[in-house]
Amino acid sequence: MEARPTPASDQVPAPAVADLRPRRTGYRRLPVQQRREQLIAVALELFASRPPEEVSLDDVAEAAEASRPLVYRYFAGGKQQLYEAALRTAADELTSRFAVPLAGTPSEQLSAVLDGYFAFVAEHDAGYSALLRGGSVVETARTSAIVDDVRRAALRRTLRHLGVREAGPRLTLLVRSWIAVVEGASLSWLDEGRTLPVAELRDWLVDQFTAMAAATALHDPQTAEVLAGVLALEGPRAERAERLREVLHRP
Amino acid sequence: MEARPTPASDQVPAPAVADLRPRRTGYRRLPVQQRREQLIAVALELFASRPPEEVSLDDVAEAAEASRPLVYRYFAGGKQQLYEAALRTAADELTSRFAVPLAGTPSEQLSAVLDGYFAFVAEHDAGYSALLRGGSVVETARTSAIVDDVRRAALRRTLRHLGVREAGPRLTLLVRSWIAVVEGASLSWLDEGRTLPVAELRDWLVDQFTAMAAATALHDPQTAEVLAGVLALEGPRAERAERLREVLHRP
Repeated sequence: MEARPTPASDQVPAPAVADLRPRRTGYRRLPVQQRREQLIAVALELFASRPPEEVSLDDVAEAAEASRPLVYRYFAGGKQQLYEAALRTAADELTSRFAVPLAGTPSEQLSAVLDGYFAFVAEHDAGYSALLRGGSVVETARTSAIVDDVRRAALRRTLRHLGVREAGPRLTLLVRSWIAVVEGASLSWLDEGRTLPVAELRDWLVDQFTAMAAATALHDPQTAEVLAGVLALEGPRAERAERLREVLHRP
Repeated sequence: MEARPTPASDQVPAPAVADLRPRRTGYRRLPVQQRREQLIAVALELFASRPPEEVSLDDVAEAAEASRPLVYRYFAGGKQQLYEAALRTAADELTSRFAVPLAGTPSEQLSAVLDGYFAFVAEHDAGYSALLRGGSVVETARTSAIVDDVRRAALRRTLRHLGVREAGPRLTLLVRSWIAVVEGASLSWLDEGRTLPVAELRDWLVDQFTAMAAATALHDPQTAEVLAGVLALEGPRAERAERLREVLHRP
């Protein structure tokens, strides 16, 4: 995030004015980087259990067993700065989960990435939901930019995985659309109290990818080529595509 | 929107304090309801050509050939209130375009609704984009709620059109997802300077609906039934579904 001066450690001499106030005791002392990470981790946990607007800096301080002034020493911009730092941390973690496993057919690889995605969604729950839903009081052009970065990373990763160097507008639209479907499905899943089994949702999303690619292939030779390549790699495991064909057979 | 006292006409006596200031002249006088509608129409036009944060109340007053105090008399909450009133008007207009024509096959009917949707998007351009993108300074929980109302109306309308009384979670997820794809596609279309022909995008979205329904039908008997019904109604026009099947054939 912003390059702000950070204290060298919790024990760094506080400004003179603070020294005049009685020292609060009973708080754990931590090295600077560790404290920063702890505050962010605690904040992420709180943001996961309730909407960001219902989390105060006092809540974060209390859960971190730290004083409010200490939290402010690390995040002078207050809750908004802490929120953005936490969001950046979560975004980096999510992006790292986009790494595709080397083994498996394309649909197995996609399934593995989706499992990682849903684990992330489950972990961040309310925070994830508030962030993507918009209209949150902590939402700014900066937080939207962080979310857009994640979407762009997902787009790049998917295209690379499909072996595409230069995606035309139709293939890009397909992948972007599918990412939007993944987001929407994960929000619905949270909304409905996680009643749909994750494994079913994951398989549904893999099938959606195949189906949406097929619909795009009708309009775009590049997508047709990519889809043919993916189905060939699926080999005998392409029976889900076969079943899609059967469903499309008029009665 | 909120029930605020509105003046009976532009000529309504202003509060005593305002009477002390010199009267500005040269502005057109309009009846109250007409003036209110004119201010909203002017605001919508301005919001369409640039992001809401770059539109000031002075701009609105100037374009409406009205004084700034007059705009404030109608919208005491300032730009935010005017923005929300304009958004509500636009939302109502968009929702009215979801009406499905009586004639035609299901895909022709869907095409007609999508044409109306894209005409709306083209008309509102920057305002539409800023609104759906999130992180705008004029975005609040209230504006998000208006957008959600439109999405819910689109969901209801689509389900009714499909002849569904009680949609299960999977069919609901399908329709919601497709609506998200429509939104995303329209934003991409604006982003890329409207280079993709609307007719192609519309056909792509109709095909996406069929394909996404097919993928959902693999997981859900209700969707399978709805899809079979739609394809049967398409009759000899279901050749796009046939082509989808061919694309899914492994090479």
